Amino acid sequence: METIFTEEQLRTFTRQTFLSMGCTEKDARLATDVLVSSDLRGIDSHGVARLTGYVRLWEAGRINTTPNIKIIHETPSTAVVDGDKGLGLVVAPKAMEIAMEKASQVGTGWVSVKNSNHFGIAGYHTLKAVEQDMIGIAMTNASPLVAPTFAMEKMLGTNPIAVAIPAGSQPPFVADMATTTAANGKLEILQRTGKEAPLGWIQDPDGFATKDAHALKKGGALLPLGGDREHGSHKGYALGAIVDIFSAVFSGANYGPWAPPFVSFLPLPDNPVGEGLGHFLGAMRIDAFRPAEEFKAHMDQWITRFRETQPVAGKKVLIPGDPEREIEAIRAKEGIPLNENVVSDLREVGEKFDIVLS
Amino acid sequence: METIFTEEQLRTFTRQTFLSMGCTEKDARLATDVLVSSDLRGIDSHGVARLTGYVRLWEAGRINTTPNIKIIHETPSTAVVDGDKGLGLVVAPKAMEIAMEKASQVGTGWVSVKNSNHFGIAGYHTLKAVEQDMIGIAMTNASPLVAPTFAMEKMLGTNPIAVAIPAGSQPPFVADMATTTAANGKLEILQRTGKEAPLGWIQDPDGFATKDAHALKKGGALLPLGGDREHGSHKGYALGAIVDIFSAVFSGANYGPWAPPFVSFLPLPDNPVGEGLGHFLGAMRIDAFRPAEEFKAHMDQWITRFRETQPVAGKKVLIPGDPEREIEAIRAKEGIPLNENVVSDLREVGEKFDIVLS
Repeated sequence: METIFTEEQLRTFTRQTFLSMGCTEKDARLATDVLVSSDLRGIDSHGVARLTGYVRLWEAGRINTTPNIKIIHETPSTAVVDGDKGLGLVVAPKAMEIAMEKASQVGTGWVSVKNSNHFGIAGYHTLKAVEQDMIGIAMTNASPLVAPTFAMEKMLGTNPIAVAIPAGSQPPFVADMATTTAANGKLEILQRTGKEAPLGWIQDPDGFATKDAHALKKGGALLPLGGDREHGSHKGYALGAIVDIFSAVFSGANYGPWAPPFVSFLPLPDNPVGEGLGHFLGAMRIDAFRPAEEFKAHMDQWITRFRETQPVAGKKVLIPGDPEREIEAIRAKEGIPLNENVVSDLREVGEKFDIVLS
Repeated sequence: METIFTEEQLRTFTRQTFLSMGCTEKDARLATDVLVSSDLRGIDSHGVARLTGYVRLWEAGRINTTPNIKIIHETPSTAVVDGDKGLGLVVAPKAMEIAMEKASQVGTGWVSVKNSNHFGIAGYHTLKAVEQDMIGIAMTNASPLVAPTFAMEKMLGTNPIAVAIPAGSQPPFVADMATTTAANGKLEILQRTGKEAPLGWIQDPDGFATKDAHALKKGGALLPLGGDREHGSHKGYALGAIVDIFSAVFSGANYGPWAPPFVSFLPLPDNPVGEGLGHFLGAMRIDAFRPAEEFKAHMDQWITRFRETQPVAGKKVLIPGDPEREIEAIRAKEGIPLNENVVSDLREVGEKFDIVLS
């Protein structure tokens, strides 16, 4: 069962919720924009479905809705930002602004963030750089759900990497990927529909490959991109590790198994090695390498040539970002479908704050 | 059949070969160091086994052994370098030096390179940054061998990404990976030993998964990390694409299917979109983010904790770089085994230049 909402309905409800949590009007609008952009782009797991999670973390005192976000260390091309326990949805855009400001000064800007929370979809932050003719890069570490190659234990989050690259007449190239075979959101869809997972997505509590879509809850783990050693899972593990180190060891956040859980009912790890979650944001001015028009003309040619790649029967070759753009065009017009569990969670939040979802 | 050579024997022969090709003493030593480091670290496909390939490219006039390597565009944190058709083995170290010099000035340095050739193992270049308490990053595009998700055509190279991160008492974290399920070198081993490839490594000329280790030569293609769409090959494709764009569209090199072939018997593509191959080198000073000793202490803790991960039965969890270090320790002592085809190729080169491999 799904109910269709307009973008505007979800924006209004979400903004009012963040205001009720004590956010400023500006921050509430920003956090709303990050969440609803995710729903618009079809990444349902990271959109308003997460709003109740943020509310619970705030109730548990783990999110500060009036943070003093500040630079604690910097050079002309780098900064470390303390998010002061703020919403990642607000902290990360601020950190990306700093990266872009540095890029406008010295060509590139790189900001590592500590003491933050989940920042929504990584792709959102990278697209801000594209608006300024910059390449945007965003990474974050996250709650440990992933077993490294040969491991039983969950040591890393799904640690996404996003890279957005401007083009000229073509839409931008936007890669936004968890460093696991499949994102947790895809597993949730299989769980809801009672389907099996392909081998290579998850392992059972003993470390064996399994098709059981519920294995994660039974003590299993998500698998790094590659799935197993023979298919290169050590590469997915290395990518997830790099995201963890750039996001958390650079900044002084919690890394690896110490990364704080997203769900408020799980306790924070003992003996933290840092503060909160970490992010890593980068911006590279394209004209720091080559005149912008020249670069964009070649990106147009790159994209056009890859679109024209001879496909296997019945398929076509896509450019990263194409699927999300297609869904966005539809949902902006026809509305955003939410499943009944999400709607009922949102109504519960609405009752708490006396806001009506309509 | 294998013959064991000492590191010194291979260094002497390789240096003499590069000198015979017209390299300066300094460049010959540098190019030799890149190649022999690869053999020492166990990446046999990228070591002296490639020497004959470089000789043939030089004979075909595609490599200039006295290049005028120069910066053609720069900002405080970026540069574009023209490699003047030089050996990538010489051009890339020079570009990494520029990146490190910029990092020492403004925190980070990022250099995109055009008009170059294959640069050996990406990891070599990143380790130069580690020596200066910097994180090193290296990427390169390469001859098209890889089919994007849903493609029949070979559009990308194995486009490796390497990231090396300094630690304190622990050895550095060194990830060095092709963005394909398996590197071409691993396929060559299967071909030599007459074994089948696991499904997910290659596809046949019609775009179907195959176990035939010779499928690439029959018109098939290597597959992006992930292997197929269900297992995330669109992520491997996106990573390979990012490497291609950073290395070649940033710099003005040839990208995608226009990347020049490594083998001299294949013609250069018609209507090139740039000059030569492209690389992308980056250096980030760790103290541009956090005091170096503090960062290294946390890297030691990161590495120690990940080594202690509870493993599946009979295995242990490794840190990226461990396998190469283990082989290096053995080969530095016991010598480097070369297979008979490689030895006979090298002897042929030796006859050409009147150098004895002993």
